Amino acid sequence: MNHILVISSNDLETYQDLFKNIDLSQATAHFSDGSDAELAKRCNIWFGSPSLIAPLLAQGIVPEWIQSTWAGVEPLLQAEMPTSYTLTNMRGIFNRLIAEYAVGHIFSHELNVKSHLSSHAEKRWNPITPRLVKGKTAGILGVGEIGGEIARLCKAVGMNVWGYTRSSTDCEAVDRYFHGDQLGECVAGVDYLISIMPNTAASTNLLNKDVFTKMKPAALLINAGRGTAIVDDDLLWALRSREIGGAVLDVFRQEPLPPDSRFWDEPNLLVTSHTAAPTLPADAVHVFAENYERFAAGDPLKFVVDFARGY
Amino acid sequence: MNHILVISSNDLETYQDLFKNIDLSQATAHFSDGSDAELAKRCNIWFGSPSLIAPLLAQGIVPEWIQSTWAGVEPLLQAEMPTSYTLTNMRGIFNRLIAEYAVGHIFSHELNVKSHLSSHAEKRWNPITPRLVKGKTAGILGVGEIGGEIARLCKAVGMNVWGYTRSSTDCEAVDRYFHGDQLGECVAGVDYLISIMPNTAASTNLLNKDVFTKMKPAALLINAGRGTAIVDDDLLWALRSREIGGAVLDVFRQEPLPPDSRFWDEPNLLVTSHTAAPTLPADAVHVFAENYERFAAGDPLKFVVDFARGY
Repeated sequence: MNHILVISSNDLETYQDLFKNIDLSQATAHFSDGSDAELAKRCNIWFGSPSLIAPLLAQGIVPEWIQSTWAGVEPLLQAEMPTSYTLTNMRGIFNRLIAEYAVGHIFSHELNVKSHLSSHAEKRWNPITPRLVKGKTAGILGVGEIGGEIARLCKAVGMNVWGYTRSSTDCEAVDRYFHGDQLGECVAGVDYLISIMPNTAASTNLLNKDVFTKMKPAALLINAGRGTAIVDDDLLWALRSREIGGAVLDVFRQEPLPPDSRFWDEPNLLVTSHTAAPTLPADAVHVFAENYERFAAGDPLKFVVDFARGY
Repeated sequence: MNHILVISSNDLETYQDLFKNIDLSQATAHFSDGSDAELAKRCNIWFGSPSLIAPLLAQGIVPEWIQSTWAGVEPLLQAEMPTSYTLTNMRGIFNRLIAEYAVGHIFSHELNVKSHLSSHAEKRWNPITPRLVKGKTAGILGVGEIGGEIARLCKAVGMNVWGYTRSSTDCEAVDRYFHGDQLGECVAGVDYLISIMPNTAASTNLLNKDVFTKMKPAALLINAGRGTAIVDDDLLWALRSREIGGAVLDVFRQEPLPPDSRFWDEPNLLVTSHTAAPTLPADAVHVFAENYERFAAGDPLKFVVDFARGY
C-alpha cells in the first residue's frame, strides 16, 4: 500500500480537489503544508515543491520517491542531503510557457512597447519606428525540451536560431549549433541571447564580463533559467557601458529580488518576478498521475534527476 | 520623355540618394516638398505622400500617374478631387510590419508586459501568472494581403484564426470565414479583434457599441487600419463598462491624437502613434521602380486604386 504525501502551502485545497479525479488504486493520498514530520515518515511518496520538501529531508526522513512540482530542484541537491531515493522533476508543462515568454519579450522589444507605454502615460504622440523580429538571430543556451520549444517558436516567427549545448545537435529548428569553447562565437552573432540553463556547476557564472563584451551592443539578454548563470555585477557593468542593449530577467540569485537590488534601477533591464513558467496545479497533478501509474506498475519513472548532473 | 516628381517633406535627401541607384531610362527625376506648382505641372508622374499631393491636385494640376508612398490614400479621394489619372498605392512593404505589430501586442498582453513594467518601476516583486497565446482566437477584419500575413503569423504562433471579409475565402491560414451580417457572430468568439480595414464607406463606424457588446469581456481590440472604423465614444464606453478588456490603437480619426483626447486617459488602452507600418524610403523606392518599369513598357501598373471602392 502506497501513501502519497501532497505538500503545498498555498494550493492544498486545489490539490485535494484535483486528486479526487485521479486513479490512485493501491494508494492513499495525504495533504500537508510540510510541517507534519510524523505524517511524512508514514508516506513513501512525496509530491510538492522542493522548498517545502528540503526541511523534511534535512531531518533525515527519506521517502522512496519524490516528485517535484518545480523544474529546478536545487534545494534538494545541497551537499548534506540524502540521495538514497528517486527524485523526479517537473517537465513538459513549462516548455510552451517559457517559449512564449522569450518570443513575447522579443516582439515587445522590437515594437518598442515600453516606449509606447511611457509616451502614452505622458499623453505624447511618439512615432518611433518599429523593427522586425523576422530575420533576427536568437541564441539559445541549453537546447533540451524547453530550449527546443523556444527554438521552434523562434523559427516559426521567422528568426534564425542558434543553439549552444553540451553536446546535443538534434533539434531540427536550430540552424547552427555551438559547443564547448564556442560560446564566444555564438553570443557574438545573436540579437537575442536566451538562457534557460538549470543551476549547475557548468552554468554558474557562465554569463560574465567576458561573454557580455563579445555580444552585439544592441543585443538583449533574456534569462528564464536560473539566476546563478549571471554574474550580477558584470551584467550591470555591461548595461551601463552599453556592451549589450538590455536584459529581461525572470530569475535571480535571491528571490524575491530585494527592494535594494541595483537591478531595479537599470533603465534597460526588466524584472519579471519568476513568472515565465508557473506550475499550474492541474498540469502538475497530470504529470504526477502519469508517473504514479509507472511507479505502481514497477516501470521506470519519467524525468528522473541525475544527482551528480543536477537536473 | 517622362518627368518624375518625388514629393517629400522630411526624406527628400534620402530619396535623392535612392533614386541615383535606380534605372530611369527615358525619365528625369525632380525633387520637391510639394510647394512648387510650376514644377508639378511639368511632371507627368508623381511619387509621394497623399498629404503633400492633395493640395496640388486641388489646384487642378493632374499628372498621368501618382504612386502613393502610403497604403491609405484618403486625401486623394475627397469628393471634389480629380480622378482622371492612374493612382497606385503602396502595398506589400507593410504586410510583415503590421502582422508583427498585431502578434507582438498579443504576446505583450498575455505576458502582462505592462504590469511587469509598472511593478519594476515601483521596485515591486509581482508574480502574476502569464497566459498562453497558443489556443487563443484572433479575428481579422479584412483579409487581403496584409490580413493574410497577419493570419499566417497568428497561425504560426498557435492561434485559431477567423476572418471577416467582403467575400474572399482564399487564405489558407484562416480557419473560419465570416461575411456580411455574420460580424456579430465573428466578434463574439474571438480573444483578439484585429482591424486593418481601409477607410471606406463600408468600414466607417463598423466598430460600434453593437459590436463591442457582443465581444468577450476580456477581448482586446487592435486597430492598425484606419481610425474611422471605430466610433470613439462607443469604444470609451465599452472599455469603461468592461464590455471589452482593452484596446491597442495605432490609428485615429485625428492624427496626431490631440493631447486632450480621452483615449489617453483610459488605463486599458494603448496609443502607438501610427507606427505599425512606417514607409521606409528604400522599400517605397523599390516599389516605385518596379511600377515605373511597367509604366515605361506600357504594361498595366500594380496596386491600382479603384476610386469607387476607395482602395
